[in-house]
Formats: sequence, structure tokens, C-alpha cells
Amino acid sequence: MKKRNCIIGQSGGPTIAINASLAGIIHKAKYSEEYQNVYGMINGIKGLLEERYMNLLEEFNTGEKINALKQTPAMYLGSCRFKLPTHEENTDTYVKLFEILTKLEITDFYYIGGNDSMDTVMKLDSYAKSIGSTIKFIGIPKTIDNDLMGTDHTPGFGSAAKYVASSILEVIHDSLIYQLQSVTIIEIMGRNAGWLTAAAALARNEYNEAPDLIYLPEVVFDINNFLDDIREVFKRKRCVVIAVSEGIKDKNGHFLDDNSKYLKKDAFGHVLHSGTGKMLETIVFKEFQCKVRSIELNVLQRCAMHIGSKTDLNESFVIGQKAVETAIAGKTGQVMGFKRISNNPYSVDYISTDVQDVANLEQKIPTEWINEAGNNITQELYDYLFPLIQGEVHINYRNGIPAYYSCKHLNK
Amino acid sequence: MKKRNCIIGQSGGPTIAINASLAGIIHKAKYSEEYQNVYGMINGIKGLLEERYMNLLEEFNTGEKINALKQTPAMYLGSCRFKLPTHEENTDTYVKLFEILTKLEITDFYYIGGNDSMDTVMKLDSYAKSIGSTIKFIGIPKTIDNDLMGTDHTPGFGSAAKYVASSILEVIHDSLIYQLQSVTIIEIMGRNAGWLTAAAALARNEYNEAPDLIYLPEVVFDINNFLDDIREVFKRKRCVVIAVSEGIKDKNGHFLDDNSKYLKKDAFGHVLHSGTGKMLETIVFKEFQCKVRSIELNVLQRCAMHIGSKTDLNESFVIGQKAVETAIAGKTGQVMGFKRISNNPYSVDYISTDVQDVANLEQKIPTEWINEAGNNITQELYDYLFPLIQGEVHINYRNGIPAYYSCKHLNK
Repeated sequence: MKKRNCIIGQSGGPTIAINASLAGIIHKAKYSEEYQNVYGMINGIKGLLEERYMNLLEEFNTGEKINALKQTPAMYLGSCRFKLPTHEENTDTYVKLFEILTKLEITDFYYIGGNDSMDTVMKLDSYAKSIGSTIKFIGIPKTIDNDLMGTDHTPGFGSAAKYVASSILEVIHDSLIYQLQSVTIIEIMGRNAGWLTAAAALARNEYNEAPDLIYLPEVVFDINNFLDDIREVFKRKRCVVIAVSEGIKDKNGHFLDDNSKYLKKDAFGHVLHSGTGKMLETIVFKEFQCKVRSIELNVLQRCAMHIGSKTDLNESFVIGQKAVETAIAGKTGQVMGFKRISNNPYSVDYISTDVQDVANLEQKIPTEWINEAGNNITQELYDYLFPLIQGEVHINYRNGIPAYYSCKHLNK
Repeated sequence: MKKRNCIIGQSGGPTIAINASLAGIIHKAKYSEEYQNVYGMINGIKGLLEERYMNLLEEFNTGEKINALKQTPAMYLGSCRFKLPTHEENTDTYVKLFEILTKLEITDFYYIGGNDSMDTVMKLDSYAKSIGSTIKFIGIPKTIDNDLMGTDHTPGFGSAAKYVASSILEVIHDSLIYQLQSVTIIEIMGRNAGWLTAAAALARNEYNEAPDLIYLPEVVFDINNFLDDIREVFKRKRCVVIAVSEGIKDKNGHFLDDNSKYLKKDAFGHVLHSGTGKMLETIVFKEFQCKVRSIELNVLQRCAMHIGSKTDLNESFVIGQKAVETAIAGKTGQVMGFKRISNNPYSVDYISTDVQDVANLEQKIPTEWINEAGNNITQELYDYLFPLIQGEVHINYRNGIPAYYSCKHLNK
């Protein structure tokens, strides 16, 4: 007799692997002997509060559909940026949520997201325990930022890293064609942690040593050092390629684009940046009077499913399955993660960690993985990153464009 | 006895298919009974004037290497933006060039490029005829802009179009995740011709009708109509996706970003634009006070070899081979091209056209292929574009990133 019912939500910003984790949960639940119903909340916890959810076993009633979902970018269930109040601040929200969960006879609650989403998991689990509820709350990490605690790396990061490295290699080919001195600045996502910017180093190969300079948010950014660095590279080559995090900050902790007119804040009060590359472009042009171009990889780095990492996509699927095993084993208030066993051959174990040790914390690049000059990464960091982008995902195409699972239901 | 010697140059901006045409010429010359030497000028006509050239049969001495070249983005030989003076203006340049060509015993001169490069072919051919030289001058078109006369479409365009359509589909998935009204503006390359922007329509599929609005440089851009158009789309959906050409102009013929501080000019006096998307972002946000994002596809649309169109890449290779056949047939002052036989099944003939009818002319989108409101394309244009993006190029990967042919020789 199937006794369990689960509900799954997605939250925060997208990656190309977040649907793979959803597919992993659906797949495991579908073929287990345990689950009666698998629900999906539309637009995360915010949608659940409005009782917007769907029956996922009805929608994904074949292995082909589950596989198509696995290879679809962004978030099939939609997302939200919704900061759950503490239950001391607002008990009503919790009462409402648990009424809905009780009505659906939910036994397991899976939430796929980043730091902020794990805050939601922690608060719900804490409230559940306070009222004696036995619902299991399991968080599944995802973020292209790779900045979560409790895991060696995050689902979604490897694919974004593969996109960044591959695109930069292509931009490097492009940058060399004219016989001119030039500086190409590539701005990469990452507010406080520079993992994805560091992945630019994976563009290096037997004929290409660029990016020549890498600037991470973990290092205080100094304009004069930056210009000196470029001057130094110009001594040995004509075209300089620079990878820079959107989140670099000066010695006072101010983001470089704090004066930008495009500053915005999200619901969590995080400042959304754009313009670091453009700002540096202006500064470099003023100094060197050479050809300067800045390229913002923008949302493409988090949604380019067509160049996903096979390692990342497979791990993201399996971690969804492992989340189901964790709930069935009776655990709650856990966040799933990877523990790296070895770099070469690459292997990981699947683990879970208490959400209290994960939520609202950021994992930054350790200082020892950044070179002394603060403009490059070390071999250790390269070796850490390298396995995560290995393998190609061969997606299907229809009519010349990728064949993804429909997202039409979200545009209402 | 092999009697012919040829030299090949690449010029203008890159596409992912320009090395495929180079590979096609090398392949045909290598396996023909006609050629002794195949030279490549480094950095086009400008490099040739400085006697910078290389022996391509020595470098590409295996079929594997030629195939790797075919699948490498940008320009193996480097490029230039060099406006050749007329020989009436400056005979010395021509005398110098022909001295070099004579020294190398060149019989055939192949130049792969866009409008401006065809101007070079025309001038050299005209000078050759005036001095009784028998060197054959053949132009091979390439441009992501698809704006050349004398051909149904240009090599390189189909791949850029496939990148644009696929990336926009991925951005659309990304744009739908939050339950917010939003406008996503995608800025696409194309100064005066909107072909590549029109290709955004290829992102439409059975579940997605976006981009909802398409603005081309062929249509006078009016801000009020633009805002009305968005208002209209908001009546039926929450998220509006707009494809806009970087080159849209107002009724006075002024580029929208004429006030931009990033205006630059290239060697031909063309103004280089950036900022149309950002400018529209500001205007839309002011009007609708909703989430607005602008994305500039930037150089990625011309160098993303990893998502090339098989149709485009194969045609680009064959047109190189056909150029060799054309020279051997004794023709000169010709630009190679495609003549479309049918859309479905898609087929083309390879043709050549007198360079006088091609150089310095632009092929824009015919008015009848744009809808009456000037914010979308017609089915006829869709049907014209559709075959050009069909088929996928399965490139090789090494260490998780694309395995391209070395471009190291260009960074000196």
C-alpha cells in the first residue's frame, strides 16, 4: 500500500540542472512502492500559499517525459523570491501552509534552491517540530554560484562553468583576429563568491593561456593594481582577456558599480548588479586608448542547456533520487550534498547535512586557492573545477532549435 | 604538372563558418591536380602588403586537420578592416601587392569576407585587368548580417541565426519563472539589415509564441508605437519578450543610441553601436514600472561554434570548393553565392556573380516580408529562414571544452 505523498518546489534563480533534480525526485517517487501522489507547487512556497499546485505523476506519466524534463532549462514549476517570516513573526502563514500540507496528506516536502531557499526549509522544519508534525523537510541545493555550505559543489554550477569556459574560449578566438592591441573583459555572475568567475580558467588549453587575469569578489579590487596587471600582460602579448566577477569590491567593501544607475534590489534586499564590465571598459580605454570590449554573459550562463555538463546533469538527477531515499529513511531538516572522494578519477558520495549548518551561509573560495597577486587562481582550484565540466549532454533538437519541455503553463 | 598557386585571405568580422570556407578551398586545392602552393595571407590584404603569409598545405597536411579547421570559430588567418584606395588614388599600393603576387607566382586569389571585402576583390580585379594580369580574383561571401547581394543568403548567417533562436528560447524559459509582469529585450547584431533579428522568430515552437515583438532596422522605430505594442501584448500574457536590432532608427534616420557615450567608428567610417537594448530597458521601466531586462547577445552570436547549423557549415565548406572550380574555369571578378531552388525540400545551386553587382551594396529585408504594423515578420520570411538553421554540428570536446584548431599564431 502506497502511503506517502510528497510536494516539490523550486525557488531562487534558475540553473539548467534544477529540472534534472525535479526529474530525479519524480522518477524515484514514481518507481518506488511508497508514493501515492507527487505534487508540484507552482512558484514555490509563495504559490503554495495561494494553493497553486499540480499533480506531477499525471503530467510526467512516461519515462520519455521525465527525460525531456531532465534536459529542460530554468524551472518547470516556476520560482519565487519570497522570504518566509519566522513563525514568531507571523504564525498565520505557517498555519495556512500546514493546513494545505495536511489537506494533501503530505508526508515529504522537497525544496530545490539556493541559500535563501534553505532558509525556507529550515524555518518550516523548525515549525513542524514545534507543532509535532512528522512531515519530512528536505532541501536539494542548486545554484550556479556554487556558494552553499554542506556540499563539495552545487548542482547547476558545473554546467554554468562549462558554458563560461567554452564561451570564453570562443570569444578568445574572436578577439585575436585583428592585428590590434586589445582588452576583452568578460563579466561573470557571482555576487560574493567567485567560483563561476574562477571557472573561466577552464578555457585554458594547449594553445591558449587566457583568460590572462581573473578578478574575484574574494579579493579587494584595486584599480591601480588592475591597470598595472594589464600593462604587465601587454609586455608579452597583444590581446588581453580578463574574467571579472560582477561582484568585485573596493577596499571599503563597495561594489565597483555602486554608482551605476542600474542598481536594483531583490526581495531579500540583495543588490542586483550590472555594469561592472562596462565600467572597467571605460577605465581601460581611458588608460590604454586601445580596442576595449566588455561582454556580459548575462542570463545565458544560467540557462544555456544546449551546452550542459553531463557530470552536472547526472549528479543533479541522482541527488533528487537521493533526497527521496533520505526522506524515506525518516530524516528531516536535511540538505542534500556531495562529498568529493577524489579528483582523479573523479568520484563523489551523496550526503545530507543538517539545514541549520547550511541555511543563510555562503561558501567562498578559500584564500589559498587564489594566487598571491589576487589576479589568478591556483592549480588546486583548477583541479577542483576541472571534473565538474566533463562530459557533454546531447540534447534533442526539433526544427533546428532545442526540443525542451513546454513552459507555457508559467506564462499566465 | 601542377601549375597553379593560390593565396587566400579572410577579412571583416568573424562568423563561425568562415574557416569552413577556408577549409573548403584548401581541401579542393590539396586534392586537385592543379595546385602547387596554397598560401594564406595573415590579416588579409593588410598583412599581405607587409608580406605576412603562410604555407597552408604545410600546416593542413591531413584531412583531420582540415576537418578541425572547418569546426573552428572566428578566422584562422586573422582579419583586417582595411579600405583599399582606388588605384587612381594610390597606385603604389597596387604595384606593391602585385609584386608580391608575382613573386609567389599566384594564379588565383580568394578573398572571404563581407561587403567591404568584396570592394577589395573588385578593385584588385579591376587593376589586374588594367595591367593585363591574368590572376583570377574570386570573392567568397560570409557575414552573420546576411546582407550581401548576389546570393540567396550568406555563409555564417545560418549558424548565427541558430544561436540567436536557440538562445532566445532558453532566455524565454528563464524569463517565465517568477510570477511577475516582465519585459525581456534581446538586442541582436545588424546595423542596417534585420535578417539576424528576424531569425529570433525561429525560437517560436508549439508551446512558445515569443518573441512577441520584433523590431528591424528596415522599419522606422517609433517609441510611442513601441510602448503601445507592449501594452497590447500585456493584455494576453504576463511576460513580454522583444527582439530588437542594434540598428533601429527613428524617422529622421538617427540610430536610437546616437546619444550613447559608447559610440565608436570603424575604419570604414561605420558607427559601431551598443546600448540600444539598455536604452529601451530604461524607457520601458519608466513606462511600466515592471521587471525589465535587456540582454545583448554581443560577439557570442558570431562565434558560438558549439551550436552551429549543419546546413550552414556544410554550405560554407562547399562554396569554398566551388570558388576553386570557378577560378580553374577561368572566371575572375566573381563572387560566389547560393541560388535557392526550393524551401521544402530545401535545396540550393552554387552560382557566381560579377563582383560589380555585389560590392558595396546591401541586401535588406523586403518590405513585403515585414508585417504591416512593423513589429513582426511574415510567414514568407519565416519559411525563408527556417531551412538555414537545420541540422546540428557535433563538434569534438577535449577536457570539457570545445576542441578547436589553435589560434595561437595570431596573438603575437
